[in-house]
Amino acid sequence: MKSIPPIAFKGHEPAYRQIEQVLRTAITSGEWASGSRLPTVQAMASNYQTSVFTIQTALETLEKDGLIERVRRRGTFVTGGRTKLRQVGIFYGTDFLRGRAMGFYQEINHCLAKALEARDVKYRLWIDGRSDEDHVQPLDDLVEAVNRREIQGIIAPVVDFPESVWLQQLGLPLGLLSSASVPYQVNFDYVKGMALAMEEFRRQGCQTVGAILPVSAATHSSYETETSQSNRQILDGFTGCLADAGLKTRNSWVRVPDRMLTALEHEEFGYRQFQEIWKQAEKPDGLLVWPDTMVRGSITGMLEAGVSVPRDLKLILHCNEGVPVLCPLPASWLKVNLEQIAAALIGQVERQLVGDPVQPVLVVPTLETVPR
Amino acid sequence: MKSIPPIAFKGHEPAYRQIEQVLRTAITSGEWASGSRLPTVQAMASNYQTSVFTIQTALETLEKDGLIERVRRRGTFVTGGRTKLRQVGIFYGTDFLRGRAMGFYQEINHCLAKALEARDVKYRLWIDGRSDEDHVQPLDDLVEAVNRREIQGIIAPVVDFPESVWLQQLGLPLGLLSSASVPYQVNFDYVKGMALAMEEFRRQGCQTVGAILPVSAATHSSYETETSQSNRQILDGFTGCLADAGLKTRNSWVRVPDRMLTALEHEEFGYRQFQEIWKQAEKPDGLLVWPDTMVRGSITGMLEAGVSVPRDLKLILHCNEGVPVLCPLPASWLKVNLEQIAAALIGQVERQLVGDPVQPVLVVPTLETVPR
Repeated sequence: MKSIPPIAFKGHEPAYRQIEQVLRTAITSGEWASGSRLPTVQAMASNYQTSVFTIQTALETLEKDGLIERVRRRGTFVTGGRTKLRQVGIFYGTDFLRGRAMGFYQEINHCLAKALEARDVKYRLWIDGRSDEDHVQPLDDLVEAVNRREIQGIIAPVVDFPESVWLQQLGLPLGLLSSASVPYQVNFDYVKGMALAMEEFRRQGCQTVGAILPVSAATHSSYETETSQSNRQILDGFTGCLADAGLKTRNSWVRVPDRMLTALEHEEFGYRQFQEIWKQAEKPDGLLVWPDTMVRGSITGMLEAGVSVPRDLKLILHCNEGVPVLCPLPASWLKVNLEQIAAALIGQVERQLVGDPVQPVLVVPTLETVPR
Repeated sequence: MKSIPPIAFKGHEPAYRQIEQVLRTAITSGEWASGSRLPTVQAMASNYQTSVFTIQTALETLEKDGLIERVRRRGTFVTGGRTKLRQVGIFYGTDFLRGRAMGFYQEINHCLAKALEARDVKYRLWIDGRSDEDHVQPLDDLVEAVNRREIQGIIAPVVDFPESVWLQQLGLPLGLLSSASVPYQVNFDYVKGMALAMEEFRRQGCQTVGAILPVSAATHSSYETETSQSNRQILDGFTGCLADAGLKTRNSWVRVPDRMLTALEHEEFGYRQFQEIWKQAEKPDGLLVWPDTMVRGSITGMLEAGVSVPRDLKLILHCNEGVPVLCPLPASWLKVNLEQIAAALIGQVERQLVGDPVQPVLVVPTLETVPR
């Protein structure tokens, strides 16, 4: 039987919460070793001069968090000591309803749901439907769930800069799909993806390569910061890997928007920029298009222009595994596996929950040369 | 000064709630006329033998609902008597995250948000992310908001049959975008839309017409019921209006899926079915494609086949206002105005809130013959 840790009760916080915190520390610090039996509820109630009910309330949360388990007729025991993830929040920022890339959002949500169910983790979903001015403030419903300890961590697959600031301040384990340099970050490995693409262009005999990419050049409002950072990585990856592979390009073959586009604008952009490249007297041997939302439009442009692929143009196109892109032309595909992204996001939360160190996880795209 | 209505307090419900209900009835029944002053909080507390705080709690909700207003130093008055919509819930069913038609969902949400903001109505958003088995049960978070009276009505632009059942049981004013025959329904007027299309085909000199439509023929699981009903209306509208306009078709020109498709499958379906029509020796003069998610694929098929539009084929394609469809071919567009849909959904809730009668609202598409 363990000794019951002392508490100097503070007036402004419920007793059950203070008791829960002290017992939690006793367990996570190892003072109460894994496998050992807890003092009886009656002993603790008498020690803390509270009701049995107060002690039970404190124990309930510890049990939910997997720190203790009650064994019928034998008592309550400290478990393995490693907190098990049982309930997580999935938060989608305001972006979700603004029209960037819904196929991606649906698929990442599907992959998260599947992975969480397989791990027997319950999840709740919040989507920030607030206006631009409001989303700099924490979302009330989410804060309430955090305060009630209904979730142990938050996964945010679609998040903008202002939201990531207040998410951090909630004090829960986080997993963000983001280009922000935070330890609990998950992101695509754009540089390795570009290197794979350039290697493939060379293998297919290309000497020159053009690209349609989603770089937002100038405007850095708070709303655009995060995505612009991603985009910058894509462009830097392209130019760097191109040079490394000994390939050439021209400024007029690298087409990037001069402002932030919504996904609803991506298709039109991919279409128009392909036309801009193809009307030039000198054309590149290969073309890279990223992301899939722009790929659609560029395919329409190629079909309309009757481009003979791969004779006149070699194609490497981005897609997310599980999000179909209709393409009657033979192309190579730079595929991102969203199941890996989902697993990495959950992993970040799990590691923080048990106190393990975290560092950014970059998911490398694969290149699929089989024509679809 | 009004007489205070008597209450026989029931033990199982909080006193403030019972007081609120009795006062609400006194106001909506006209017993307490609009413009009249309420008894003082002290008088009511003494009458009901409760605390002043209990009375204040009861009055707060009535004030939120716009039934009474407090005027500084003068007292509390019955307002115009017509409840003003101030806070509404927007509920998206499980379908939202399953990949049917995200462009549509984004745009309807945008239109709802804009219309509600213009009316100074606050809104909260719920998205049902639960599994197939679970979504037959009410969504806890939503039920909680209803019980706390945080919302006065629910708008559901994406709802499946099992959800519409428990939404009804919540007892709040509803606005559903659905093909269910309920008085608070909002829907597209498919029949009038088809009539417009057939008239246009005739005007353009067509004698025969084919169609790619989203009919789900057989399977009627609870998950599919609602959408199948919609689809049936589209097919019936097509065949009926075609005959009325003196146009002809063939079975092999009317392409419908034999099972429910997700929107991610729509593009491929539109592509393949166009190929099925175009490989036939006899081809129709005109082609109707509905919905926009299938339109994309059929355009890809036409571009690949090098179809000369409108010489060899006249096109009428569906789209939702505000959801761009990239089409380099000249076509006529059957457009649905989602602002009208949003306004109709809000109108249904407002009418129920003040006790006005409601009946289904059908929004008629418009035909735009200007080539895009």
